[in-house]
Amino acid sequence: MKALVFDKSLRFVPNHPDPSPRPNEALIRVRRAGVCNTDLEIVKGYMGFTGVLGHEFVGVVEKSPDESLVGKRVVGEINCACGSCDMCRRGLARHCPTRTVLGILGRNGAFAERLALPVENLHVVPDQLPDDEAVFTEPTAAAFEIVEQLPYLGPTYSVAVLGDGKLGLLVAQVLAAVGCRLVAVGKHPEKLDILRSRGIKTSLLDDCGNAQFDVTVDCTGSPSGFELASKLVRPRGTIVLKSTVAGAAPMNLAPLVINEITVVGSRCGPFPPAIEALRARQVDVRPLIAATYPIEDGLAAIHCASEKGSLKVLLRF
Amino acid sequence: MKALVFDKSLRFVPNHPDPSPRPNEALIRVRRAGVCNTDLEIVKGYMGFTGVLGHEFVGVVEKSPDESLVGKRVVGEINCACGSCDMCRRGLARHCPTRTVLGILGRNGAFAERLALPVENLHVVPDQLPDDEAVFTEPTAAAFEIVEQLPYLGPTYSVAVLGDGKLGLLVAQVLAAVGCRLVAVGKHPEKLDILRSRGIKTSLLDDCGNAQFDVTVDCTGSPSGFELASKLVRPRGTIVLKSTVAGAAPMNLAPLVINEITVVGSRCGPFPPAIEALRARQVDVRPLIAATYPIEDGLAAIHCASEKGSLKVLLRF
Repeated sequence: MKALVFDKSLRFVPNHPDPSPRPNEALIRVRRAGVCNTDLEIVKGYMGFTGVLGHEFVGVVEKSPDESLVGKRVVGEINCACGSCDMCRRGLARHCPTRTVLGILGRNGAFAERLALPVENLHVVPDQLPDDEAVFTEPTAAAFEIVEQLPYLGPTYSVAVLGDGKLGLLVAQVLAAVGCRLVAVGKHPEKLDILRSRGIKTSLLDDCGNAQFDVTVDCTGSPSGFELASKLVRPRGTIVLKSTVAGAAPMNLAPLVINEITVVGSRCGPFPPAIEALRARQVDVRPLIAATYPIEDGLAAIHCASEKGSLKVLLRF
Repeated sequence: MKALVFDKSLRFVPNHPDPSPRPNEALIRVRRAGVCNTDLEIVKGYMGFTGVLGHEFVGVVEKSPDESLVGKRVVGEINCACGSCDMCRRGLARHCPTRTVLGILGRNGAFAERLALPVENLHVVPDQLPDDEAVFTEPTAAAFEIVEQLPYLGPTYSVAVLGDGKLGLLVAQVLAAVGCRLVAVGKHPEKLDILRSRGIKTSLLDDCGNAQFDVTVDCTGSPSGFELASKLVRPRGTIVLKSTVAGAAPMNLAPLVINEITVVGSRCGPFPPAIEALRARQVDVRPLIAATYPIEDGLAAIHCASEKGSLKVLLRF
């Protein structure tokens, strides 16, 4: 099968072996895959991953131990847990210490014609949700993770989403649905316009001044995002970290102590509310698609996604 | 009056002017003062403070607008708030943006024969609590801040206090009183013995292996403490930051995101439970006193406190 493989360097492989699903796994033919900043960080060395890249996808089940799934269009949760350890028993399977993660850790990913995932990871996609939008389920779920971690968010909370890249634009739309006093902060008027057209308040970074929010969400994808999030959060406020950045950067944590800030690391989230928000177009991802490439042009797709300011690049099969 | 003053360098001043209390402030004759790591960080440039150093003290009220306080032995909260801003109205006066802080920010401190503080900051010390122990009220209150911020701590929580310096030894005693599954982690068997003699479980750092705690509390006072706290906390666990360290150090925040860790910055805390715990010797600070110097030998006291592994150094007047 055709696949985009990272092993020290990234290359297109026209004849990669098909995955061999385990007894509890389905074989899925990928229809669309999305390029995430995490993929770009992996190409820079993050996680030390080698194999087929990619973890955002929508596809059709070809084989499955649960035969009712065959032929169904699905999206899939990316963490594959053992199901029996302490974390799994606590309901924290996404944090299973022996997990594999699709295209990120010990498991070939979605930038290939076929992938394998445990049946329990799959969610059937409603017919009304086109492939080009369903492929956003995984990052939209990551945005919903914030709602799960900060369940108290509501009209009395002022929230700034920092970064107007693809993750920031998703997070802002999800948090707008919660009804908090939201401002999306970015550097690109044309991207902020996507949110403004949906009635979301926006601000250019340079206009923020000394604003102090109850919650700041770092979606900048930049090592400097944490410092910005610290500057714009009020004492005793909360910073949500959504970006993973490869490598260490100099940081001063003293302001966290002095201002008694809470920092919440936030990664993968629940799929069902994400699918529903996409279906209802409460989260509209159509303006977020920058380009779509055939898998054969995967290197060009990654190059395009790496360009400063690029929105979501999709692969089609 | 005699005072220990920092202004680019630290010096003993035999004839410093007495403080001039404002209408709402009391004048206090200091009996004991304690040297905190924050003082040592200030001498390295932290906070850019200049003036009389010191914020841990016990003293006797000489003058006060509330005359019932005159002659009383008191300890004092160190944050002096405006009382009318947004933070003060929310009950977060310790975070008032225009606050002064005794010996740390815009207000002369406790390493002097006399200091001034607002009457509302003062707490009368019970007769049974000697000066040498009452002087620990401020850092003990800082340890109680953790209990206020993590009110759910109890027998189902495993907690590691990292660092067996003076702050770590206080925090471990306070958290032991909460009844969580506590381990105090340090490098110095003789310091950990202080805790072990009180029935608190301890571990040498090298023996921690891959232990995973629900909560880790960084009291190391070292830039490397944060990395250690990250390593020893379980996914979805909580790191409490108690140490303030001057300057920036290289850090990688990706593990916070991947493991969805919550980081809670923690500074000053409530005085009443600290006074009561000291009075009842639920927290026994007597073994924590390394040395006591007269104020005239303040430079030697700071030098002694700066020595690696030094416990609490007191000043007497």
